[in-house]
Amino acid sequence: MHLASYFSREGGIPTVGVVEWTEVIAVRDLVPEAPGDMIGLIGQWPALKEKIAAALPQAPASVRQALSSLTLLPPVPQPGKILCIGLNYALHAKEGGNPIPDYPAFFIRVQSSLVAPGAPVLRPRVSEKLDYECELTIVIGRTAHDVPEAEALEYVFGYTIMNDVSVRDYQRKSTQWTAGKNFNATGPLGPVIATADALPPGAHGLGIRTRLNGLVMQESDTSDMIFSVARTVSLLSEIMTLEPGDVIATGTPSGVGYARTPPVWMKPGDVVEVEVDGIGTLSNPVADA
Amino acid sequence: MHLASYFSREGGIPTVGVVEWTEVIAVRDLVPEAPGDMIGLIGQWPALKEKIAAALPQAPASVRQALSSLTLLPPVPQPGKILCIGLNYALHAKEGGNPIPDYPAFFIRVQSSLVAPGAPVLRPRVSEKLDYECELTIVIGRTAHDVPEAEALEYVFGYTIMNDVSVRDYQRKSTQWTAGKNFNATGPLGPVIATADALPPGAHGLGIRTRLNGLVMQESDTSDMIFSVARTVSLLSEIMTLEPGDVIATGTPSGVGYARTPPVWMKPGDVVEVEVDGIGTLSNPVADA
Repeated sequence: MHLASYFSREGGIPTVGVVEWTEVIAVRDLVPEAPGDMIGLIGQWPALKEKIAAALPQAPASVRQALSSLTLLPPVPQPGKILCIGLNYALHAKEGGNPIPDYPAFFIRVQSSLVAPGAPVLRPRVSEKLDYECELTIVIGRTAHDVPEAEALEYVFGYTIMNDVSVRDYQRKSTQWTAGKNFNATGPLGPVIATADALPPGAHGLGIRTRLNGLVMQESDTSDMIFSVARTVSLLSEIMTLEPGDVIATGTPSGVGYARTPPVWMKPGDVVEVEVDGIGTLSNPVADA
Repeated sequence: MHLASYFSREGGIPTVGVVEWTEVIAVRDLVPEAPGDMIGLIGQWPALKEKIAAALPQAPASVRQALSSLTLLPPVPQPGKILCIGLNYALHAKEGGNPIPDYPAFFIRVQSSLVAPGAPVLRPRVSEKLDYECELTIVIGRTAHDVPEAEALEYVFGYTIMNDVSVRDYQRKSTQWTAGKNFNATGPLGPVIATADALPPGAHGLGIRTRLNGLVMQESDTSDMIFSVARTVSLLSEIMTLEPGDVIATGTPSGVGYARTPPVWMKPGDVVEVEVDGIGTLSNPVADA
């Protein structure tokens, strides 16, 4: 199943719905007692998913809204944690002159860095070194602490996509990448969550790519990840308790703008698309802050 | 004025109160229309502070609770952002073999790493390399974006203290310190917020120290900070919009456990105190996770 968060047409309240091709049906129009927000829905998913699936074929045309008519939000609009891995594809580590890591380079984003599907990525006033990074992104489904790798996939609700847009000169102003990864409106997330059962186990073997103004800039496969989804969840759960709705961006393949000759930077007027097969395409224009 | 967050005795709801020596008066017992939580109070502070100050001397004994009878919370129980600086005292940079930075090494903590005053710091199952770090901590008072250094102190609500407890082997597992700074229950915050007007401008010239089991392990002065409070707020606001209740831990002086010969690690049964003159003493026992 594919799920989206969006502003309801009545009142502009964040709402969660099931996406069927070009249509969206609010979960509460299928199962009235369901929570109206994504984190609430994830928390009650085991009890609700059969009911939602059963109600879906009966949903009348009156509750089906055109996806194109809605203003989408990041599928988890306010994740409790936004965790990221820096280097998780061997060729990307190599293009940046980094060794293959034996432990993930974890970093964190704040909520103010997120961008909704379709909303503009903002190029900061202070830098023109704006770079794309397509990333398979895990959405946690159950409270997870000290979870062994063999059981870790049971804690995954589903998958979405992050464009981990990086301000490269700020990323390198100190040893810590935080500054360059946390400018306002530089982290598109979405467009939807594909529940784990809609994809291969661990989201393995999915094509992942970035297009900038229609040109393919990154193209790889999630099976090239150094740290698998299960290993990533297990390692993070050793450190901190993961909660429903927490998201983990799992790193980007090679082909980023800074490693090209000459470098490619995103600029106002560009359109950047990141895509993972089976999840969707996350498209954002670029604008000046 | 000094403000604390704590569980109300009736119903265990997070409440904010004014601390007068050994007593606490709930802000709502002084000004009934005031918000009951710290972030709400900070947002309305300019309109409320005179009323609160005026009501304080009249507060009857019936609304004065003994500080020692209350269960404190981190003064901002759930900050929207928990931002930290890695190296901000020259002698601490030197003891770790790091050069003096020309830009702050920013990193981020998640909320699950926070610990209330008096609650145990948890030594992880997977590491014994548990180290203390006393840090002056800024509490943001007003929405701040692109704020020049000369105006930055106007955006500071007050100051608290963080013990930025670090799991040193995890901090060094990759180039990014995130893992070692985000174990559950490793970030004591508190005990109170001193409003900015209760301290020298920029909290400059305050003694700062750590005691482990009563022994002084770190001892310095906030005037030794490489990046001042105003500069730190200004630089962060260039990156992201800061909001009321966001906290910024400003780095630790020399004397940390890992740089000693032999190294000193905190262990269950220890009591660690971090102190900034004019704010208070934040004391926590250490226990096994």
